[in-house]
Amino acid sequence: MADIDAFLDDLSSAAPVPGGGTVAALETAMAASLLAMVCNLTLGKQRYAAVETRIRSVLQEAGEFRDRARQLGDEDVEAYGAVARVLALSRATEEEKATRAARLQDALKRAAAPPLETMQLASQVLYLAGDLVDIGNSSAISDIGTAAASARAGFEAARLNVEINLAGIKDQEWALETRRAMDKIPAPELIEQTIMQKVTSIIRGNIA
Amino acid sequence: MADIDAFLDDLSSAAPVPGGGTVAALETAMAASLLAMVCNLTLGKQRYAAVETRIRSVLQEAGEFRDRARQLGDEDVEAYGAVARVLALSRATEEEKATRAARLQDALKRAAAPPLETMQLASQVLYLAGDLVDIGNSSAISDIGTAAASARAGFEAARLNVEINLAGIKDQEWALETRRAMDKIPAPELIEQTIMQKVTSIIRGNIA
Repeated sequence: MADIDAFLDDLSSAAPVPGGGTVAALETAMAASLLAMVCNLTLGKQRYAAVETRIRSVLQEAGEFRDRARQLGDEDVEAYGAVARVLALSRATEEEKATRAARLQDALKRAAAPPLETMQLASQVLYLAGDLVDIGNSSAISDIGTAAASARAGFEAARLNVEINLAGIKDQEWALETRRAMDKIPAPELIEQTIMQKVTSIIRGNIA
Repeated sequence: MADIDAFLDDLSSAAPVPGGGTVAALETAMAASLLAMVCNLTLGKQRYAAVETRIRSVLQEAGEFRDRARQLGDEDVEAYGAVARVLALSRATEEEKATRAARLQDALKRAAAPPLETMQLASQVLYLAGDLVDIGNSSAISDIGTAAASARAGFEAARLNVEINLAGIKDQEWALETRRAMDKIPAPELIEQTIMQKVTSIIRGNIA
């Protein structure tokens, strides 16, 4: 995992990317990967033969969510990198100031897209964890809880990253529209709590 | 970030490691890295000159927490790998069964240590985020919130991973001792909520 160390180094540095938006996307990708793992640990087991078709469908979706979340990590790096480049532009003349201000608004709008989609994806991953907790291999139940906690963190982090972008945007109509899109995404608290309670009670029910 | 893809592939597979305990440690490491980033974005700025000494101390601690969390990710892989190897041992004779059962108890006890320490570390990272939210560069405030959400997820995930281990342990005295150690670690919910509220109000106070 050498490149994970490099990633943590880059994250720790003052460089504008990677930052919180990338972490949000990675948390969502890790959550989806854990759900795929639990599916892979459930398929082919006699005890879970009755749910095989449903598990296959969860596995398929988890893989798609994971791939998209992973891409969003890169798209966030790209979009925030563009914001940082605009912020570094010269403000020596009035004309430069005006150009910079206009380009900043464009870059901020573009940079809101990856975390907004990450919120949607993290919410979907959480609901998928909610499906899997009732049918997945109970010996891997802690991994479903870990996935739920990770997806919730991805959602919360992505939300903050959209919010801080909106704070810089002067087009109030666009900002309102984006807030409406955020509000339409099912919030993660209740579903995460339900999953965590189920996971904890299944673990304690297994006690030696 | 090629190896992050390899990590997500390994995580998605049915292989016993990496799993939830590794994700818990990585979330804690990412949280600490984000705090270090915010410190690096605060140091040397005129506006934050008065808190420079405190920021340097947060940066130092964040670096130590991150390095230890990163190691715990590897230690979890090692300890769970050992559990998986014991589970794969033959149970053909009564003697083999007895040897396997005894070795499993040892391996499970050892495997509880990395997630237990991850819980402690994640809690410490959260309290460090609570210090930084009042003094760090407000233009990176969403990253402090992202760190808090990530550390909370690391804590919750680590807790589930200790719990599922305890469920397999027959030495009830040892299990009780471990539960006592878990209960002594400050829980993350309240501090995380406080940080999130501060972050959200600072972001909204910045509105263009």
